[in-house]
Amino acid sequence: MAASSSPSPSPSTLLFRSKASERFIPYTERTSISFRSPITGSKKNPLFCSGIKKTNSRILLEIAASAAPIVETTKPSSANAPTIVDVDLGNRSYPIYIGPGLLDQPDLLQRHVKGKRVLIVTNTTVAPLYLEKVISALTYGNSGISVEHVILPDGEKYKDMDTLMKVFDKAIESRMDRKCTFVALGGGVIGDMCGFAAAAFLRGVNFIQIPTTLMAQVDSSVGGKTGINHPLGKNLIGAFFQPQCVLIDTDTLNTLPDRELASGIAEVVKYGLIRDAEFFEWQEKNMQALLGRDPSALAYAIKRSCENKAEVVSLDEKESGLRATLNLGHTFGHAIEAGLGYGEWLHGEAVAAGTVMAVDMSYRLGWIDDSIVRRVINILEQAKVPTAPPDIMTVEKFKTIMAVDKKVADGLLRLILLKGPLGNCVFTGDYDNKALEETLRAFCES
Amino acid sequence: MAASSSPSPSPSTLLFRSKASERFIPYTERTSISFRSPITGSKKNPLFCSGIKKTNSRILLEIAASAAPIVETTKPSSANAPTIVDVDLGNRSYPIYIGPGLLDQPDLLQRHVKGKRVLIVTNTTVAPLYLEKVISALTYGNSGISVEHVILPDGEKYKDMDTLMKVFDKAIESRMDRKCTFVALGGGVIGDMCGFAAAAFLRGVNFIQIPTTLMAQVDSSVGGKTGINHPLGKNLIGAFFQPQCVLIDTDTLNTLPDRELASGIAEVVKYGLIRDAEFFEWQEKNMQALLGRDPSALAYAIKRSCENKAEVVSLDEKESGLRATLNLGHTFGHAIEAGLGYGEWLHGEAVAAGTVMAVDMSYRLGWIDDSIVRRVINILEQAKVPTAPPDIMTVEKFKTIMAVDKKVADGLLRLILLKGPLGNCVFTGDYDNKALEETLRAFCES
Repeated sequence: MAASSSPSPSPSTLLFRSKASERFIPYTERTSISFRSPITGSKKNPLFCSGIKKTNSRILLEIAASAAPIVETTKPSSANAPTIVDVDLGNRSYPIYIGPGLLDQPDLLQRHVKGKRVLIVTNTTVAPLYLEKVISALTYGNSGISVEHVILPDGEKYKDMDTLMKVFDKAIESRMDRKCTFVALGGGVIGDMCGFAAAAFLRGVNFIQIPTTLMAQVDSSVGGKTGINHPLGKNLIGAFFQPQCVLIDTDTLNTLPDRELASGIAEVVKYGLIRDAEFFEWQEKNMQALLGRDPSALAYAIKRSCENKAEVVSLDEKESGLRATLNLGHTFGHAIEAGLGYGEWLHGEAVAAGTVMAVDMSYRLGWIDDSIVRRVINILEQAKVPTAPPDIMTVEKFKTIMAVDKKVADGLLRLILLKGPLGNCVFTGDYDNKALEETLRAFCES
Repeated sequence: MAASSSPSPSPSTLLFRSKASERFIPYTERTSISFRSPITGSKKNPLFCSGIKKTNSRILLEIAASAAPIVETTKPSSANAPTIVDVDLGNRSYPIYIGPGLLDQPDLLQRHVKGKRVLIVTNTTVAPLYLEKVISALTYGNSGISVEHVILPDGEKYKDMDTLMKVFDKAIESRMDRKCTFVALGGGVIGDMCGFAAAAFLRGVNFIQIPTTLMAQVDSSVGGKTGINHPLGKNLIGAFFQPQCVLIDTDTLNTLPDRELASGIAEVVKYGLIRDAEFFEWQEKNMQALLGRDPSALAYAIKRSCENKAEVVSLDEKESGLRATLNLGHTFGHAIEAGLGYGEWLHGEAVAAGTVMAVDMSYRLGWIDDSIVRRVINILEQAKVPTAPPDIMTVEKFKTIMAVDKKVADGLLRLILLKGPLGNCVFTGDYDNKALEETLRAFCES
């Protein structure tokens, strides 16, 4: 595909503009294009080899999230027994089941269904692949149950109030009651929407997550954050609402497009950066195995990601502080998603570019050394996700959108930034604003 | 206004059709029309003087809610000190302030405002009366605060998703953040919508209730039930979400239309019936004082209602059972509101008719004696609220709408019914369905 002055990306081909080169670079699945970061060698980035800024201002909120040893909660693995990671939230605790073939084990699902009515929420892409399988798992040997479903259009741009209302319409038409169970079957968008629908329907009904994308399996299905987007910002309307269980059948990754797989890897990388240096090092050695869909490599990455997420969520369910560190790269990333129009880039693609920006800013602040910057760009380039925002994102556009980020408090934008050795980060509003300005200018044309 | 075969009620005049008489009776504020119940003398109601049905079926859920002694939590009253009723919910506990002139005491409000940004949600009727006063109370001596407002159209028919989105739009446009506070200024519709908006905005921000109708002051502002209607049913979408405080300035009742006042009294009557016989007896003696807006009578009714509600909510916040008893008459009442179109009857008017239907059914089941039936009809007639559903409600319409009631569980409709001496009720799905059929037939033309 040739460069064009006014590109209109086809559904299967996306154009990322690499700022430094001034060319449009076509992005297609599994191509080997790397996205040059302005931090590495651009003339506009003198900081990389020069002095660093330090801040002296009042510390408003700073939470160190260092790598903690992970307690193994997994059961011995066998052909049938799933790996189990527990999310410890008192009387709202729940298990994450991980393994191949779990949708062929009806008991796993059925033990978490409350009541006799189930509503499966899925989308046009996933329904043809797994809807029948899930209905079978729910009804096998369980004739007293009534299972309905609603199939939503696929994509982040449908994560809105109009589409959410379709879930309520179906729930009411099919007489779902307070004892019913909603089942989210799909990726992060389906999980977030189904979860919020369950939180709000009759002021709260049970739900189960069956994530079918790597992104949802390693991140969004765990921890109870649910919600929808507003035209002005991502996930601005929602609820904290925990599922009864998360069932991750790793076989569902067999039908996942490569581009979606790579997007999910951006969140896996995040866990290493914010709290698990050892996991990051493992990823550096195993990225090709992950991209090549080696089952044991994927299973390990999912388990370790879920363990990290479960631990953070258990310590800070409602995001008083620590949990915010899971949003490394997300403030910049959400701005990219909103600025570009939801669904143009996948969530993980935007987060990848956002992560490089957060790392760039951390370096400008003098909080990390250059080896970390290089390693982050290298691993994301290996995963073939963007490492710079699209050209449409101007400094002003970033600022306008980030001003309505959920992490703004009393007008101050708080960010997750790396600080110290690999695997350490802070959530803070106490940074030199000049570093933010410089990062934005370095990554944006105007 | 003469009878008509196809009446179209004007905004200020509503037609309640008294079934027995086959005439349309115009309802206008402060008229002395009484609404005849079919239970009192209709030929279709032989049960009133004949045998009763008993049920032998399995008890599914039955909760006795007997009158409990109320613990006085009020402070000594003075010119300035409000009466305080505490809602005890652990770390989500909050005070209800009750008294005249409370909006002239800025400290009361300001001590519960979190953050520096406030969004007042009100409507076109209340804004001209109290918006400036509330803004003054929030900003007096508190220049660091930024106060925005959104004015919604007035009425139950606007308690929908489209109107709710206007609150989110305004919140986002005016840069409300996680530390902001929403203030609900108005009646039950405003409180429910603002509360749900606060529950869902950024997955939850603080809010304060300033109820300005008797209905909201004695019931809907207390206890954290928030939500909106769906075309097929009332409050089907929402959240349990507690406010920081409820501020009841009884002076706001001075601007309340008589019809709204009478509507609120239906909920006051409810507390007496379900758990506080002594309060019911007080109401029988003081109904004329209440309707005549005697300040001390109103203050006592509000306080005692809030105490009853606070106690029930403290014992069962999420409505596992006991709290459902607060919905006496509401299953029938919600069906009337949905069937007639939201806003045609006020909520309390529909609840009044629904209460008579629930009492009728309780009598048909043999659970209460006829004196209670007569006393309920008598007190509601005194309050000049309807004691029968409108003619448009058919048996089928009731059944269809009640089938999606939130209290349906696994297909079984659970109801709040009186049982035993005055002040006792049950929440149960264990009743002879024939009694429900007979009640519906007795109150409906077809």
